[in-house]
Amino acid sequence: MATPSINRPSPEKIFNTLTSFQVTAALRAAIDLDIFTFIADGANTPAALAPKTKAAERGMRILCDYMTIHGFLTKDKGTYALTPDSAIFLNRHSPAYMGSTAKFLTSDRSRANFENLSEAVRKGGTVTQEGTNTAPDDEFWVEFARSMASLTAISANFMAELAGSGEGKPIKVLDIAASHGMFGITIAKKNPQAQIVALDWPNVLKVAEENADAAGVRNRMTLLPGSAFDVDMGTGYDCVLVTNLLHHFDEGDCEKLIRKVHHALKPNGKVLTLEFVPNEDRISPPMAAAFSLIMLANTNSGDAYTFAEYEKMFRNSGFAKTTLHQVPDMPQQVLVSEK
Amino acid sequence: MATPSINRPSPEKIFNTLTSFQVTAALRAAIDLDIFTFIADGANTPAALAPKTKAAERGMRILCDYMTIHGFLTKDKGTYALTPDSAIFLNRHSPAYMGSTAKFLTSDRSRANFENLSEAVRKGGTVTQEGTNTAPDDEFWVEFARSMASLTAISANFMAELAGSGEGKPIKVLDIAASHGMFGITIAKKNPQAQIVALDWPNVLKVAEENADAAGVRNRMTLLPGSAFDVDMGTGYDCVLVTNLLHHFDEGDCEKLIRKVHHALKPNGKVLTLEFVPNEDRISPPMAAAFSLIMLANTNSGDAYTFAEYEKMFRNSGFAKTTLHQVPDMPQQVLVSEK
Repeated sequence: MATPSINRPSPEKIFNTLTSFQVTAALRAAIDLDIFTFIADGANTPAALAPKTKAAERGMRILCDYMTIHGFLTKDKGTYALTPDSAIFLNRHSPAYMGSTAKFLTSDRSRANFENLSEAVRKGGTVTQEGTNTAPDDEFWVEFARSMASLTAISANFMAELAGSGEGKPIKVLDIAASHGMFGITIAKKNPQAQIVALDWPNVLKVAEENADAAGVRNRMTLLPGSAFDVDMGTGYDCVLVTNLLHHFDEGDCEKLIRKVHHALKPNGKVLTLEFVPNEDRISPPMAAAFSLIMLANTNSGDAYTFAEYEKMFRNSGFAKTTLHQVPDMPQQVLVSEK
Repeated sequence: MATPSINRPSPEKIFNTLTSFQVTAALRAAIDLDIFTFIADGANTPAALAPKTKAAERGMRILCDYMTIHGFLTKDKGTYALTPDSAIFLNRHSPAYMGSTAKFLTSDRSRANFENLSEAVRKGGTVTQEGTNTAPDDEFWVEFARSMASLTAISANFMAELAGSGEGKPIKVLDIAASHGMFGITIAKKNPQAQIVALDWPNVLKVAEENADAAGVRNRMTLLPGSAFDVDMGTGYDCVLVTNLLHHFDEGDCEKLIRKVHHALKPNGKVLTLEFVPNEDRISPPMAAAFSLIMLANTNSGDAYTFAEYEKMFRNSGFAKTTLHQVPDMPQQVLVSEK
């Protein structure tokens, strides 16, 4: 509702939250119709955008106004322009383009998982799918790999530093649930002596393979197809990457996996775990803490575990020491666990 | 993403918008499970809430943390409490409870209309339903009437003032698309000499009838079932209320309806139109301007019309003068048009 006084109770926030699914839908449509790229290229009125997007001028006017109201465009005398964020992240020509993330974040399955959230709360876990996210060759994770790679650059560089890539020594790295492969690929790019073993389902590994090809490091990446729970990981690794994986499972399954990782590592080897790690209060930092609800909606018993919970899982699995590192400017954290 | 510096480009807003459908789903679940009422009544931990809500303690912990992260609860040492807004608007015992609005705002049809928003933009109108919102006895509008009455108090009081209810003279009021009936009922309560004719579909008028009964004014409300476009409205009205109706139609149909209203009014009678009226820029005030997208998604050719557009429609339909009045603390405006 309209600008209530500060501290005066208002239904505005409640109303806006109950309708915020509409803002998701609008941004998704704007990305889908690629209006940010067309506006950057000079088609900056509804009349100019309509033929480019094969859309009705009326529809384009309403969508662009809505994007302006929500801060993704500016409007001056009927002409739209990009905001700094839109220019960097939503113009397809930008190297930091992240429009592709909309495909995964708002996919049918991602949305379906939230359709019956009351039921998921009642049950204490997902009500819409198999729930362990370990089905072989699930196309959902191909979509993830293709959509979300654009968001990994900062985390991947940060992890590559933690892996000591700058030292340029020969290292053998296991990238578990490699997905797009960008975490291992970044290490390989920074350290010409690094050998990467990428573990994931065969259909997902195709995406990692393409990305390794594009990065010119395909000859130093070995593919290890299968489930992290079942496949023989081999041994002698200097470093194991476990990225966005443990949150899908209960603590028992996490420990099962961590023990396998412990076995695969060299003495003095380390595992780098990229995760959403909330503080003990479980309400901060906001995005790490909020990730818990996504796990409630999407998995049987996954969670955003706290540092104390992870530290215990790694200790129980044989690791001597685990430390927590915030990824700069990102909502995630890295756990470094030493054998 | 986590707290980027001011003015530094960040994917945070884009990421949060692409996932804001999750916040809608969470608030809807919290209202559905009635956690705000239970917390107000003293069940303020996951362990205490679980049996009350028949939910898993784990699900309740994750939902309450998420509601805290998004500012609908506070948390201190594992104990949750309501915020001022939640206490007033989300506790079922509060007279200002608006949890019922979630039913309409997040109903299957409301959400389905946004499922294919790109297609609606391409077409320039809704792709999911008949689109004129004039189907007889549509249960969607019963849901609206039952859900949204709680949000009308401020607007209804404001309109009753504009209708001169305080003067206590005998007046005959036509309430078109009466819905829950609260606009006419409020006039009847303030002016014991007011007679109300409530026009809507028979199934919707049942809700208005119940509300008139509860308000003790049923004996001064006459029911006029049918479509505003087709039914004989009668004549001799001092005042006609047209609330949240014109935005569904194109300008031609609006004028058709306004001419009928003009005919029904006494000389010197006036029509009060409650609407979302954006400024000429169509991007402010934000909620009035944003309403345009809801009409794109839900109707063939409805819109949030500007004052200039409405003024013209009323002038073309025979009205001498139209003025614009902001409803205090609400996102809507009232047009007063004099015959």
